[in-house]
This record gives sequence, C-alpha cells and structure tokens, in this order.
Amino acid sequence: MAKISVLGSGAWGTALAMLLSDNGHEVLLWSPFAEHTEELRRTRKSSALGGLELPAGMQFTSDMKKAGERQDAIVLATASVYTRGVARELRPYVKTGQLLVCVAKGIEEKSLLFQTDEVQEEIPDAVVACLSGPSHAEEVARRLPTTCVAGAADSAVAEQVQELFMNRVFRVYTSTDVKGIELGGAVKNVIALAAGIADGLGYGDNTKAALITRGIAETARLGVKIGAHWETFAGLTGIGDLIVTCASMHSRNRRAGILIGRGKPVEEAMREVGQVVEGVYSAKAALALAEREQVEMPIVDVVNRVLFSELPAAEAVRMLMERDPIAEWNYL
Amino acid sequence: MAKISVLGSGAWGTALAMLLSDNGHEVLLWSPFAEHTEELRRTRKSSALGGLELPAGMQFTSDMKKAGERQDAIVLATASVYTRGVARELRPYVKTGQLLVCVAKGIEEKSLLFQTDEVQEEIPDAVVACLSGPSHAEEVARRLPTTCVAGAADSAVAEQVQELFMNRVFRVYTSTDVKGIELGGAVKNVIALAAGIADGLGYGDNTKAALITRGIAETARLGVKIGAHWETFAGLTGIGDLIVTCASMHSRNRRAGILIGRGKPVEEAMREVGQVVEGVYSAKAALALAEREQVEMPIVDVVNRVLFSELPAAEAVRMLMERDPIAEWNYL
Repeated sequence: MAKISVLGSGAWGTALAMLLSDNGHEVLLWSPFAEHTEELRRTRKSSALGGLELPAGMQFTSDMKKAGERQDAIVLATASVYTRGVARELRPYVKTGQLLVCVAKGIEEKSLLFQTDEVQEEIPDAVVACLSGPSHAEEVARRLPTTCVAGAADSAVAEQVQELFMNRVFRVYTSTDVKGIELGGAVKNVIALAAGIADGLGYGDNTKAALITRGIAETARLGVKIGAHWETFAGLTGIGDLIVTCASMHSRNRRAGILIGRGKPVEEAMREVGQVVEGVYSAKAALALAEREQVEMPIVDVVNRVLFSELPAAEAVRMLMERDPIAEWNYL
Repeated sequence: MAKISVLGSGAWGTALAMLLSDNGHEVLLWSPFAEHTEELRRTRKSSALGGLELPAGMQFTSDMKKAGERQDAIVLATASVYTRGVARELRPYVKTGQLLVCVAKGIEEKSLLFQTDEVQEEIPDAVVACLSGPSHAEEVARRLPTTCVAGAADSAVAEQVQELFMNRVFRVYTSTDVKGIELGGAVKNVIALAAGIADGLGYGDNTKAALITRGIAETARLGVKIGAHWETFAGLTGIGDLIVTCASMHSRNRRAGILIGRGKPVEEAMREVGQVVEGVYSAKAALALAEREQVEMPIVDVVNRVLFSELPAAEAVRMLMERDPIAEWNYL
C-alpha cells in the first residue's frame, strides 16, 4: 500500500484516483479550487464523472503542500497546458527522487517539449514517468476492462508504476519508449480532428480507417526521427488510443472536426464544442516538430491548412487522395 | 484501358467491377449462376449492393471460358472457401503469365495456405497478386474515399495492379509483403469476433481498443515468424482493415461475436447471423498456424475456447486481463 496524491480532479484524474483507491492505496485528490474540494468532501461524488460515487477511503485537498509532501507517488492529471505551472507549484514540497506520473497529453507550443520533459525541467531531481493508452475516464471509473502503458526511461520505474495501477480490470504494460508514448498521445488529437472532418463530410468507415492508419504511419515516421520506436505507434498508446478517440463522441477533437467538415468556420466550431479543443494547438506544434525534423506529415499538414488557412475540408481530402501513387512502406 | 474479368458477383466483386469500369476498363463480371447473370443483364442493378445501378459498359457472363480467355487481368472475388475451386475451373482458359488478383481473405483449413498460394498451386504459371485494405464494398460502390494495398512478390506487378485500380476516390499503395497482407486479412475476422464478444458483454471502447491493438500485436508476432514484415500489420491491410471490421455492423463476424457475448450458444449465434461467419473457420486455422510456428496468440486462443470448448465469454476476458504483467513489446 502506497501513499499517492493525484493532482487534478477532472474526469481522468478522478478516475485514476478511484482506481488507485480500489488497489488499496491511500489516495489524496488535489484540486486547485477550494470549493470543488469542499464539494467532493461533502458529497463524495464526482461531477466530472456524472455524479459517480467515490471510494470510501479517498481524501481531498486544495493544499499543494499536503499533496506534495511525503508521497510515494504523485500523479499529474491536470490538462496539459497547466502541467508546467502545477509542477512549478509542486516543486518546493517534493523529496529528491520523488516519483511523478504524467497522464496528460500534449506538446508545449513554444518549446515543443512533451509533458514529462516539461515536468523534468521544472523538478530536475524527480523521477518522471508517464501513463497512457486507450482509456476513456468514464469507462475506467465504471471498472470496464482497460489497458494502458506505463512508460519510463528506466524499466524498473515503469514496473513500479505498473504495480501501482494494475488490477483485474486495468491491465498495464511497461515501456521505456517515453518519447514514442508522448508523441503518439499528442498527435492523436490532430488525427482525430481529421477523422471528425471526414465524418462531417459524410464519408464512411473506409475513409476514417484510412486517415487513422496513415495518420499513425506519418506519426511513426516523425517518432523514429526523434529516437522513438516504431512499435510504440502500433501499440496501445498509438493506434489503440487513436481508435478510442476516433470512435467516441466524448472526444472534443472529433466533435470539432465533424462541425468543420459540415462547413462551420473553425472559430465557430470551437465555440460550439465549448471546451479546449486540444488538437487545434497540437496541430501547430506537430507541424512545427515535423518541419524541424524535416519529416513529411501530409495529414497534419492539411489539418493545419483547414484550421488556419481556410482550405475547404473536401479539398483537403482530395489533396490526400490524389498524392502520387506510392508504396505503403517506402523502405521495405 | 485493359480487358478485365471479375469472378464473383457478390458485394465486393461487384463494387470492384464498378470501380474498374469507372477507370475506363472493359469489365466482364462472372457469376456461377446463370439466373443471376441474366438478372444483372436485364436490370443492370446489383442486388448484392442494395440495388445500386451498374455502369453502362459493364458486361456479364456465366461462361468461365469467356471470363478466362484474352484478359489483361482477372480478379478472383468469390468467398475464400470457393477460391481454389474457381481457380481450378479457370485454369484451362488462361494464358501463361496471366495476371490474377485475389481479393478474398482466409486461410485454407486443411493446408493452412493463403489465397494466393492456393491459386498459384492450381495455376502454377499465372502471376498472382492480391488487393486488400479497409474497404466496405458498399462504400466503394458509393465512391466514398477508400485506400487499399496491392500486393505482389514482384513490385512491378504490384504497381501494375495499383495502376488498374487507383483513381480519385480509391487510393492504392503497393507492397511486396503478400504473406503479411494475407495473414492480416485472415486473422482480422477472429479479432472482430473477439471485439464483438466484448461488445456483447457490455464492455466499452477501452476494451475493444485493447483487443484490436493486442490482436494486431499477436498477429504481427506470428507474421514475423513466417517471414512477413511487422509494418504490414500496422498498415492498411492490418490494423486499418481491422478497425473497419470492428466498427461496422455490416461485419458478420462482429455480429456473431455480439450474440455470443450476450450468452447465445455458438451454433445459435451462427444460425441467427445466417451467413458464413468466416472468423469461426479462421479461428481454427490461425490457432493451427500459431501452434505450428510456436507463437503465443492469447486472443486467438481464447476465441477458440469460447467457440469450441464452451469457455464462458466473460471468463475469456478475465483470462486475458489477468495474464502476467509484461512489457508492451518484450524485445524493445
């Protein structure tokens, strides 16, 4: 049994806190908002998870000192844009060698850094891992069978994370390919936007499967260039997570894509979805990374043009379909 | 412009005949049933494709001699169990070096051979290629954007097939990994059964994405052992085709799986689906192949037990979830 705090009481943070609580750990769920902490304490229900009941032992706080001190592990589960800020706030309280687990996905737009890199930059002496995979929070909270990957440069650390999270309905694999895991997680939102656009245009399953498969192929191409392993993109954190995202109406990225595919201007689509559409930011960052590494990413490229250069969606699909005939894997 | 006959007037054969006709080729669609040929000639509509209208130039026959002689290419598009018989019937009429394109998927149960191997065995001096990918016939017939892979041991042959089929809404890639393409196509029906079972048990998108992703991983493991390339399984004919199959209620394999997951006995589920549930046969053949090659395929294994040894479906999922904790790719 370990002492674990989870930073961020959104759907994913709360679902993971429940899972860790199910596993017998002493769990403290931190929210930056004192009123939210109060509400959780009083109702013991999560509004982020549709009012689901929280396990008896779970504790709540808005005090970063309490969440940061004397923990065996700390899970960083706020939206990716807040990760750096939360890490900075956390830093004074954590011990040397503190185990931190990043579960958000995204590339920082200015630095082009991934989540674990940002956190490591803010807390240099921490041991930073990540957890990713095809996992709607709602389904994890309902204890439906789910698989994820614990990633850390040191395989012993990945195994430590695996042991904390794994149970009968949550199967965890390990990997040392942190870059591959994080790149796949960030770019999947861009591909989900593309898949949504195809849905909005009235195209079928064939088109969507093509976008997903070729989307992963171009992501893998970039990944290998930055030192990631090809296989990671064919795994749970790559194609697996992308499948879940593209199948689901929970996905804000897919929903925004559908509206854009139906002809809504981008700004209006984002307003209508109402929350952060992460893929819009990741699209820029992914393209910048691809340009820095001189890797061709045709799907990411046309998504950027649809989002920021008023390329009509149907025209974007036409551009992809009419590229020169090629081999599926040009190096085989 | 080429002279092409398509053997088999089911949904996929007809959709491909329409596509080839759209591309300006002289297309002859063969059916073993004279009445069906008569009906096609009279109505110029395809009942296999919901009454869709057929292109003006398309011709029809039940005469194998006509379909076999003087063709630039012949597409074999009957259900996989009939492929060998059709090839045997075709043999007397084709010229040396005749280009044949297999588009059905399956492993022959007794010989454990793939489609192109069976055809090559029956017509040794033909040049045999295959075409596969995420492609519901109904969507191809409606000219929705679709991608496929043309496979042949000789890349020049693959490019020849690419040129015949490719157009603005049907993008064709080439590959020389025929074994990888055909193994992926055959095993996908088994994984689709598993995904259907999970649906029938009331599990969510997380479980399904896990089965799809780990299903491809174990298929790739077998593929590499028989000389296929890993990447093929991460491509359009592997994961791509599997995504389409698992997302669709068109898939008989998925539908049968759903019924089994809901507790129907296997025989009853197959009766209710009413047509050939290819995954049931492929499950046996895939397991036999895995045993011959001494490769572990946990998902194919439990599907076989559910189908043929009365293992309850929920128990099968439990067995998969509770396997020993491992790395995602154990050789990385």
